This record gives sequence, C-alpha cells and structure tokens, in this order.
Amino acid sequence: MSCDFLALAQPGVQKLSPYVPGKPVDELARELNLDPAGIVKLASNENPLGPSPRVLDAIRNELAELTRYPDGNGFVLKQRLAQHYALQIDQITLGNGSNDILELVARAYLAPGLNAVFSAHAFAVYPIATQAVGAQGKVVPARDHGHDLDAMLAAIDENTRVVFIANPNNPTGTWFDAEALERFLARVPDSVLVVLDEAYIEYAEGGEMPDGLAFLAAHPNLLVSRTFSKAYGLAALRVGYAVSSAQIADVLNRVRQPFNVNSLALAAACAALDDTEYLAASRAANAAGMRQLEAAFAELGLRWIPSKGNFIAVDFGRDAAPINHALLQEGVIVRPVAGYGMPTFLRVSIGTEAENARFIEVLRKVLAQ
Amino acid sequence: MSCDFLALAQPGVQKLSPYVPGKPVDELARELNLDPAGIVKLASNENPLGPSPRVLDAIRNELAELTRYPDGNGFVLKQRLAQHYALQIDQITLGNGSNDILELVARAYLAPGLNAVFSAHAFAVYPIATQAVGAQGKVVPARDHGHDLDAMLAAIDENTRVVFIANPNNPTGTWFDAEALERFLARVPDSVLVVLDEAYIEYAEGGEMPDGLAFLAAHPNLLVSRTFSKAYGLAALRVGYAVSSAQIADVLNRVRQPFNVNSLALAAACAALDDTEYLAASRAANAAGMRQLEAAFAELGLRWIPSKGNFIAVDFGRDAAPINHALLQEGVIVRPVAGYGMPTFLRVSIGTEAENARFIEVLRKVLAQ
Repeated sequence: MSCDFLALAQPGVQKLSPYVPGKPVDELARELNLDPAGIVKLASNENPLGPSPRVLDAIRNELAELTRYPDGNGFVLKQRLAQHYALQIDQITLGNGSNDILELVARAYLAPGLNAVFSAHAFAVYPIATQAVGAQGKVVPARDHGHDLDAMLAAIDENTRVVFIANPNNPTGTWFDAEALERFLARVPDSVLVVLDEAYIEYAEGGEMPDGLAFLAAHPNLLVSRTFSKAYGLAALRVGYAVSSAQIADVLNRVRQPFNVNSLALAAACAALDDTEYLAASRAANAAGMRQLEAAFAELGLRWIPSKGNFIAVDFGRDAAPINHALLQEGVIVRPVAGYGMPTFLRVSIGTEAENARFIEVLRKVLAQ
Repeated sequence: MSCDFLALAQPGVQKLSPYVPGKPVDELARELNLDPAGIVKLASNENPLGPSPRVLDAIRNELAELTRYPDGNGFVLKQRLAQHYALQIDQITLGNGSNDILELVARAYLAPGLNAVFSAHAFAVYPIATQAVGAQGKVVPARDHGHDLDAMLAAIDENTRVVFIANPNNPTGTWFDAEALERFLARVPDSVLVVLDEAYIEYAEGGEMPDGLAFLAAHPNLLVSRTFSKAYGLAALRVGYAVSSAQIADVLNRVRQPFNVNSLALAAACAALDDTEYLAASRAANAAGMRQLEAAFAELGLRWIPSKGNFIAVDFGRDAAPINHALLQEGVIVRPVAGYGMPTFLRVSIGTEAENARFIEVLRKVLAQ
C-alpha cells in the first residue's frame, strides 16, 4: 500500500507554491525551436556584462581543489568582507545566494503561531520562506508600489518576529531614504528582527540611498542581506551574505548547512570584491541602459516605476500576459509580475545596449499589432 | 536596548551544535605555521585522485554563463540521471550536496512532537537536521558498530516520520546486505519515510551490497540519497540528489531553494556521470589504499572496522585524542570521532598511495613515542 506523502508533509509545506524563476534561454529555445544565441533574456536581473576576467582567473586557480570540501567557515571570504566593510568576522553569515540567508532567518526565528511582516509587491521568497516553516505572512499594502513603512510598523503584533524590507525593492525598483529607514528602525520593537534586503544596493549607492551597514551599530535587531549575484555578476555560483550582530550571526550559522557555499563561489566572491573596475562598469552600463529603456517607454507612451535596481517595471495599463506571450514568440524573455499583484506590468532587466535595443524593437512591433 | 536573539530563536535551533567539518589544510597551516603543501589531509573522505579532466572541461565550458542564474529545475542533469539509472525525471530531487537532501526531508516531514530514528555512530547531519526543526532524534544502539535494523524497527513509534539508514555507514564503514534491507523495508510502516543514505555506494557496489534504487518500485516510502562529492570527486561544488516516488520528490522540490545547485555543479555532475574511467580509477585506488592501510594496521597490532567506504575507522584501544593531536603536529589530518561515540577510534580517509604511506610513517612514529 502507498501512503499519501503530501498529506504527511508539514502543513505549511503542503500549501507551498515554489518560486517561479525567469524562463531559461534553453527552455524557450526547446519549446519554440529557436536558436538559443538569438534569444534575449531580460528576466532575472542578471548582469549583462558577462563574467569579470579577474573572477574567471580566481575560479581557474581554484579548480585543482575540486575534490576537496569547501572551507565550511568561509574564513577567507569573511575576512575580506570584514576588511572591505569594516566589520567583525563574527557578524557575517555566508549564504548559498541571499535566498539562503532569507531562509536561514525564517528557520531560526519563525514557526507556526508566529508571523513575518512584508510589503505587497515584495520579493517572492519572503512569503515562501515564511510559509515553508508554517508561520503566517502579513502582507502590508504598498504605497505607490513602494513599502509603506508606517503601515508596516502598524502591522507588527505580539507574534511578529521578523520584518522583511528591501531597498531598493524587487520587482518594483522603489526605495526609501536614510531618514525613513532611521524612523522605521527607531520604532520597530527590539525583539523584532528587521531583515533589510539590499540585493541591489550596489546599483543604487549614493544620493539619498542609505547604506544599511551604517545602521547596524545602533540597531542590534537589524540584519542586512546582500548578494554577489547582481552587480558582482556571480548569479551562477550562488553566494550571498548577511551582516548582523554577532549573536544573530551565531544563530544563523548554527542553522546554516556546513558547506552551503561552494569553493568556486568563495574564491570568485573574494576576487569580485576587489574588482572595482567591473563594479564601476556594471553601474555605468546599468545607468545607461536604464536611460535607454526609459526613453523608449516615454516615446511609446508607456508609464513605468522609477527604479534604483537593474530592472524596471513598465505598465501597459492592461493585462500584460498577451504582450509577454508575444515577446516570447519573438525570442525575448522578460518577467511577468502578475504573481506579485502587478498584472498590467512586466519587469524588464537592464541588458546590454544591443539587448535593450532588441527588446525595444520587438516591443514596438508587438504593441503595433 | 538589545534583545536576546538566542532566546528568541526556535528551541531546537538554540540547542544546535553545528557540524564540525574536517580541519581544512589552510587552517592547520595557519595554526602551526606549516607549509600547506606538506600537509596530508585524510579527514573528509575526499577523492584523492584530484579532478577529472572531463569534469574540468565541462566547468570551463560553462564559465561564460557565470552571470546567469542556474537552471532552477536542473533539467539536463536530471535527464542524464534518469537515463543513467532508468528513472523518471520526476523522481529526482537535486541537492546542494546530499546534506541538502537530508535537510529537505527533515523540513518537509519533521516538526516538534515528531521523531526520526537513526543509529548510534551514524552521520552527524541526521541528528542536526532533526533537531534544527525541533523534532526528536531517537538514537538506536549499534551492533558491532553497524546498524541494528531490528532494534531500529522496534524504535519506530506512532510519532516516527523518518528513519535514516546509511549503507555503507559513515564513519564506521559498516553495511548490510540486500536481504537485510528487504526484511527491514517490508516491516517499516508505510507512513514512515526511509531515507537510505548511499553517499559511498559507488565504492561499495557489487557482491552482497544492495542497490537502493532497485527497492524503490516496491517501497513507495523509500528515498535513496546519493552524492557526487565522493567517488565522483566533486566535493567542492556541492551536488547530491534524492530518488524517491514522484510524490515525495514533488514535496521536497517545494521546500528546495530555487537555485540550490549552482551552474558549474550541474555541468560538472553531467560530465562526471559519463566519466566511467574516473569512477573506475577511484574505485581501484580506493581498494588498493584500503589494503595498504589494513596491512599497516595489522602490522602495528591495531584493530579496525572492516569498511565498504573510502575511509576506515581504526581503534587504538585508548583515548585517541592525544594520538590525533600528535598526528596534527606532524601535518597529518585525520578525523576524530569521539563526537560519534567512538573516542578510541580515528577515522582515516583513503588517500593516494603516497599520502597513505606518509600517514602510516607518522602514525608509526607517534605510536612509538
């Protein structure tokens, strides 16, 4: 006899809908019998510059050690991060991408009967990680698609253990300034862990954008989550990190899998951190690409949400699914965000100038039909 | 004011002692100011042959895609595994090492009030994964250091959801035959998930050793966990997999992080699976090294546990910690297993002929002191 192993799973797990990634190029090529080389993917907020030569060298130098386990403590990378950002090593938790960090927080601090507060139109992994451990997700309506920090404060109750905020936010690109962050942190109860997701901060630095790390000393309930997947260009390798109090880092490191970050990722991240040229080029290309897309949207009479990320959410004022479908037929992959409560929008990652131009050309054609 | 974020963590997490990996070569070199090149590490059951050239080619071919996210479905690797082992793709769950598989099972099927049954002297991740989700670990005494399957059956109660068994077992190298496995599976309640950990199966194949995959059709409550970290030589990259019923795989894939296995690992594992030469060389070197160590232990009058793995647990008949300490001073890293309830043993991974010889030479010197 066969038992029902779905019914035997934990209640939160039974109801989980897994994260839906951007459609891979190879998958679309298989489905539509297209040449993968002709497909433009602007769907996963990936760095369009391709790998940094210094990172590739670091990986090649590490290949001889392929049969060895990674350093489970990630000593060298944590040391480099500590130097780079003037931190203590024991404040750092390494993750298999920052997705891993978000899950470590949920597993350490959430459970049935407890809840996490996050915004509408926020990253899909906040509700998934929360539900996977059987906790409740409290979704706070957004204001102009961005976080309504006052409403998020008001949503915190005695069972709230975690608040997820993102700056800038994905998929909207919205952000809040240092003053808003300080006001928020000052009013969050000390016992509530604030997870400040800065996956896109390297694109947004400067101006009125706060640096989350600067708020750690005054707020021991703050955790800043970052990644090497975006501006540093290491999405394939999976490496992110959290910075927090040493006590919170100790807890997360207990929950962390001993070899969660692979050896090539550790080596690559060290090289990426020092590669200021690549980072500067990533920022410059992103800023130029953002202007290119905004100009095209303006010309096409489309509205968009101003973005501090490496992506932009554009509003078609009607169901965007048919537009997405038509783009796919032409070999252009962008990201539908109906699942984020934004059915009239598509999120477009900033590509190279040529990729952006191709997208614009195809979009123009699709909208003219 | 600062809150106690250890006290706020989930009860199971508060009491977690993280897994203690084998001491990395670089760490020992730093501590004792030794030349890393002169250190012999036989502590983590790593493949001593170094990387396979075919695997290195596959990794190099994948480097151009470093800025792209991995295929979250691992389509190509799952397809290759399905072909190789005559499985359906939907029976497979990919893990960030098989450690990830063990944790996915715990997160999906265990919770406070439930328990998992495993043997004394079994892999440390079984109790860690169980405790991390607040479930109880029921440790069944071993028989001759191996699994006492009858006693494990007797330990199953109405709150048991998972039984972890390993064949061969780490750190003892003990094993059970097909008849014992069949008798066990026939008597485990249908609602209890049996996790058969075959991390070392590629070293043990043939003879009386059962192939866990052959038992899946008749036992829908069976999950077989395997890894590319050992005989396939990919420990640095983190890739393992589970084979189970499609329903259990569906549940685990909901809990799985969307990009848990990195792109280079996916490419490397595909190449490794086809690399029959490397696998054959791994087996041959392991068999020869096992004979080399057994002969030396016999000559030194030491007892050991016969092993089907790529490691051997040797008994010094007294506290092994001082012997381990003396070995470290000479630049030889093996694995203390006091934490596994075996304080008089050390576990020695099979190295190259030269590494084994160096270990034997140093051991002889240490024991003569």
